[in-house]
Amino acid sequence: MQLRYSIFGESHGPGIGVVLEGLPSGLVMDMEFIQSEMDRRRAKKGGLSTTRLEGDQPEIISGVFEGRTTGTPLCAVIRNENTRSGDYTRTMDLARPSHADYTGRVRYGGYNDYRGGGHFSGRLTAPLVFAGAVAKLWLAEQGIRVGGHILRVGPVEDVPFDPVAVSADQFAVIAARTLPTISEQAGEQMQLVIQQARADLTSVGGIIQIAVTGLPAGIGSPDDSLEGIISRNIFAVPAVKGIEFGLGFGFGQAYGHEVNDPMRMDGERVVSTTNNNGGILGGISSGMPVIFQVAVKPTPSIARKQQTVDMAHHTDASLEIQGRHDPCILSRATVVVEAAAALAVMQAMRDQ
Amino acid sequence: MQLRYSIFGESHGPGIGVVLEGLPSGLVMDMEFIQSEMDRRRAKKGGLSTTRLEGDQPEIISGVFEGRTTGTPLCAVIRNENTRSGDYTRTMDLARPSHADYTGRVRYGGYNDYRGGGHFSGRLTAPLVFAGAVAKLWLAEQGIRVGGHILRVGPVEDVPFDPVAVSADQFAVIAARTLPTISEQAGEQMQLVIQQARADLTSVGGIIQIAVTGLPAGIGSPDDSLEGIISRNIFAVPAVKGIEFGLGFGFGQAYGHEVNDPMRMDGERVVSTTNNNGGILGGISSGMPVIFQVAVKPTPSIARKQQTVDMAHHTDASLEIQGRHDPCILSRATVVVEAAAALAVMQAMRDQ
Amino acid sequence: MQLRYSIFGESHGPGIGVVLEGLPSGLVMDMEFIQSEMDRRRAKKGGLSTTRLEGDQPEIISGVFEGRTTGTPLCAVIRNENTRSGDYTRTMDLARPSHADYTGRVRYGGYNDYRGGGHFSGRLTAPLVFAGAVAKLWLAEQGIRVGGHILRVGPVEDVPFDPVAVSADQFAVIAARTLPTISEQAGEQMQLVIQQARADLTSVGGIIQIAVTGLPAGIGSPDDSLEGIISRNIFAVPAVKGIEFGLGFGFGQAYGHEVNDPMRMDGERVVSTTNNNGGILGGISSGMPVIFQVAVKPTPSIARKQQTVDMAHHTDASLEIQGRHDPCILSRATVVVEAAAALAVMQAMRDQ
Amino acid sequence: MQLRYSIFGESHGPGIGVVLEGLPSGLVMDMEFIQSEMDRRRAKKGGLSTTRLEGDQPEIISGVFEGRTTGTPLCAVIRNENTRSGDYTRTMDLARPSHADYTGRVRYGGYNDYRGGGHFSGRLTAPLVFAGAVAKLWLAEQGIRVGGHILRVGPVEDVPFDPVAVSADQFAVIAARTLPTISEQAGEQMQLVIQQARADLTSVGGIIQIAVTGLPAGIGSPDDSLEGIISRNIFAVPAVKGIEFGLGFGFGQAYGHEVNDPMRMDGERVVSTTNNNGGILGGISSGMPVIFQVAVKPTPSIARKQQTVDMAHHTDASLEIQGRHDPCILSRATVVVEAAAALAVMQAMRDQ
Repeated sequence: MQLRYSIFGESHGPGIGVVLEGLPSGLVMDMEFIQSEMDRRRAKKGGLSTTRLEGDQPEIISGVFEGRTTGTPLCAVIRNENTRSGDYTRTMDLARPSHADYTGRVRYGGYNDYRGGGHFSGRLTAPLVFAGAVAKLWLAEQGIRVGGHILRVGPVEDVPFDPVAVSADQFAVIAARTLPTISEQAGEQMQLVIQQARADLTSVGGIIQIAVTGLPAGIGSPDDSLEGIISRNIFAVPAVKGIEFGLGFGFGQAYGHEVNDPMRMDGERVVSTTNNNGGILGGISSGMPVIFQVAVKPTPSIARKQQTVDMAHHTDASLEIQGRHDPCILSRATVVVEAAAALAVMQAMRDQ
Repeated sequence: MQLRYSIFGESHGPGIGVVLEGLPSGLVMDMEFIQSEMDRRRAKKGGLSTTRLEGDQPEIISGVFEGRTTGTPLCAVIRNENTRSGDYTRTMDLARPSHADYTGRVRYGGYNDYRGGGHFSGRLTAPLVFAGAVAKLWLAEQGIRVGGHILRVGPVEDVPFDPVAVSADQFAVIAARTLPTISEQAGEQMQLVIQQARADLTSVGGIIQIAVTGLPAGIGSPDDSLEGIISRNIFAVPAVKGIEFGLGFGFGQAYGHEVNDPMRMDGERVVSTTNNNGGILGGISSGMPVIFQVAVKPTPSIARKQQTVDMAHHTDASLEIQGRHDPCILSRATVVVEAAAALAVMQAMRDQ
Repeated sequence: MQLRYSIFGESHGPGIGVVLEGLPSGLVMDMEFIQSEMDRRRAKKGGLSTTRLEGDQPEIISGVFEGRTTGTPLCAVIRNENTRSGDYTRTMDLARPSHADYTGRVRYGGYNDYRGGGHFSGRLTAPLVFAGAVAKLWLAEQGIRVGGHILRVGPVEDVPFDPVAVSADQFAVIAARTLPTISEQAGEQMQLVIQQARADLTSVGGIIQIAVTGLPAGIGSPDDSLEGIISRNIFAVPAVKGIEFGLGFGFGQAYGHEVNDPMRMDGERVVSTTNNNGGILGGISSGMPVIFQVAVKPTPSIARKQQTVDMAHHTDASLEIQGRHDPCILSRATVVVEAAAALAVMQAMRDQ
Repeated sequence: MQLRYSIFGESHGPGIGVVLEGLPSGLVMDMEFIQSEMDRRRAKKGGLSTTRLEGDQPEIISGVFEGRTTGTPLCAVIRNENTRSGDYTRTMDLARPSHADYTGRVRYGGYNDYRGGGHFSGRLTAPLVFAGAVAKLWLAEQGIRVGGHILRVGPVEDVPFDPVAVSADQFAVIAARTLPTISEQAGEQMQLVIQQARADLTSVGGIIQIAVTGLPAGIGSPDDSLEGIISRNIFAVPAVKGIEFGLGFGFGQAYGHEVNDPMRMDGERVVSTTNNNGGILGGISSGMPVIFQVAVKPTPSIARKQQTVDMAHHTDASLEIQGRHDPCILSRATVVVEAAAALAVMQAMRDQ
């Protein structure tokens, strides 16, 4: 049965949540794991993210009985608390540049909840992480793991995953660090870059790299490609502006004889000696690790004065954004992108 | 009504084609325009592409009456001709590296038509171009144009579109060149690179850039983002391995105050003075041109000897691919990527 | 945008609810009307239905701001209260005949919540009525009304709607009665039949008739027929076993010259002088009232001893159902079937 | 993978056909069986149906290789021949009563192909039968059979299927008769009724009964009920106006203790001693035969003079339909309804 998920809620409304349809029945809901994933997304101290700290305890309303999924729709709700609507109402007519304030207003005819970004808020990624954690539990039963790290923040690069030998054992190590990186040193340098961005009243972008291990060959199809399914899920994560599989944009400067992935037998398994295609050929998984990179833009909410428009009076205006914002969302976004990827892979598998 | 399209066919079967559902009724089928788009995709002489030249005349089976769409499903079929199956059967068990031979065989349990790549063949992009041309006709009625150019082939870069001032007037000029580039000189250099790749028995990758002009603000949604809809369509094009919107992966090295797009009034219109977000904010069009780049890998079919596996005997093997192949598909792929983009934009608009 | 709704919850879990996606923005949420619809579904006193009386106050979690829909997903949750799980656990392995106990157990591998029917419970129709009430609010803005009455309970027949002249003015009058009938006398007789069924430790079935007024011609399509859209929604209501449009099964004994609907002009409007087709031709609305009948089976939960199986021990068994049950659900089901119909009509309209 | 099918074509255009997506790979395409199903739908001699006799040879364009499905989209096209457009153009502005002429014109803004009913023509059921035959081949591999008979034509009733003991062995016997009935005598009487209707320049309606044998318990779900999936497919068949499962509308006059289906063990199998629910409980198959009845209206095209409207001039008009028409479509419709049912059951199974 097709797996569907619907994220609902607004940043300053009663709550946010998700409904998952098409889940298998009998899946053990490891709430400790789910909560640990939720915790990875939460704001961090030390100037690395917003000071809005929330509990984010999901309440499961339906679809779980005696600790296992029933197979009928699972709804989880997270109550909003610690909202400071006063921060926002003063500036409701001023579109924050590079935010969805203007496009959301046009899209919904002015009826969208503008407080704190409403349905566009990064807060909506909390139920996405919940849903992704459920997907990870199911994938783990099939021997499939999804992990990520920050490949870049501004000028600082992390070591990439080894595209032919990435192991799920790394994932827990990475997730346990202050910033999820492979190289501890890169992570420390990224922290400095982020703290400097905050000091400079700005924000900084980066790149997240994801690996999916254990995925068997044969998932996806030419007409509904695995890359396409993953992309559609990933682009629903706020601030994502690009995705590339394997060598990705690097293919644009490459020659076929350099980047074709030679194949060989590894016992009974067909493998490739390189993995420039990121584990997907013709829209179908090849059995090699699925590897992709996701471009994340700098948080648009910065404290510096910016030029914008007053949407009510149709005039130019300037804006200084108040409130609590992340100078860099990469640290919190890694588990979010993992969640979207896990859901996509589960969707592709469940559809076959 | 939702627009859906189903591409069918195999490279060496009776024919290929497409069914379009959810088309509006009354759309004038400008067959001259449609054929001109088909012609842009066809193989080119002068060593720039394969020597398999085909007529590619689509026959419209249904959904058109007295020169206009009826609103009921439109089916078009293109007969296969000039097939040389003998080229392929000798090597049917040898997986071509970086091709879908192995993944397709696993996915379909060995029942897929392997001749000429079967359903995975680049030939299947012909009905996609047909469908895209129909979408372009509808979009043109709304004042929306979709155009593209080769931004890169190997080491050669073209001038990018001006992200705030790209005009549809350029598109025809670009499409009329031997290679679709903005700079004629870049196009000439690209030809040399491609011819050299052919001489070197290899192939070369590149990047295609697409612009959509005239799209009003408000198309898309946070839950089903315009980037996601476009991506899913684009990744169904063979050889695409990455997509980025606006600054895309460039955001990964950028600071918020540098790349946020300042907004201003332009008469009654809300515009931005830069367009790093590629015309999409929060998954919704902003009214600025939609700009994105697509990474295309080098054609995996190269004449050099390659290491691979014999899928029937489960042994290592080496392969020298025979037959007619493109040393670079960028020239032919530009109109294909435009087609996928046009269909995606029409889908997003028709769904609202 | 396509309207979707997902009903979630189990009878004895924390709560039940619904997520509505694809709602228009700006719709005024008339909570008084919505609550009045919820009240129509609630258990009635006087031996006509179960004695489980609940508040059924939906809490809107998302998608509404300042009293109007935002256009983003709307989630409403109704908490479960007054649950007596003790009634059910004693008999959890005994499949209630004509219930979903056995099929649900097979479908979900035994992981479904069996208490009170779980996700199969008639209680799940409460969020359906909520969603239907929202749909009715939107339809009313377009001049479209949906109403229903009990056409039959056991041997007692009500007067049918006038298929060419049914007026929405009737709907409020019908809804205000103890049982929703056109003829008060028929309603009184039905009450006697229901009370007798209760006294006889059995239950009784019936037929509900629905009318949709004000629907313009042209809604639906031959490939996704309006009858099909309505049916799919209606058959998701528990206990529904049949649906017929207009003359329905009566066509099986009819001749074309008797039942073809002659057409004529009524000023500028095209009308038919009879409406045997129930307002739908070729899967598309004709502008005449849409009329259909729905067969509802007797509540399977009856107090008499019944033959069944023990699903855990794979043996024959006998069962006497305890607990509070409706001897006839027609009175409560009318607003439920209206709700499913309203959602279907809104889906068909929003998809065009 | 979800099974989808798209029927395309118009009665007097170049051709009609179907694209099937989501088929399994490796299914043996028994063309003899498929053609025999097509033949069952074709016009019959002896005054029982239209005199438009066609070859209806489907050409498979894609999705089949070496006699088996590839798993990629299967397109089949049937060329139109023997069209007499002259029959229709004289009356193109006169809406045939109880036909889709008026609703189709409104739906498609006047751009629909009106010749011979265009996309609404009963001829479009030919590709549906083709698709249904493919579905039957797959179902047969799972031990599932779909068969039907005419339960009623006007006043004549056939013997119904035995709801607990219907056997697929009957299906071939029924299909081999002049009219597909269980009782030969009923079939002969129906022929007389049909011939009399033709002589009387009218047409006659009826009821088709379908049985699905061998379907395991557990197919369907409460939110997407098996009844709903079947109904949606069945109502896409022209002239269908009602559907009921098991006792269906008979439940409206029944008491629970009379019609609840008692359950018992039959060896290891759970069965019921009656099957009033038609093999479906809670939207899920119970393992008993799925039994349902479909109401088919009299062909609206009758030779008698009828009152109608001139859609171009907005005036009342009278109409005498010329051309070749069926006085009763039940004989040809049985295999069509079977096809729609087979596709629905396959959809429900493939989605799980």
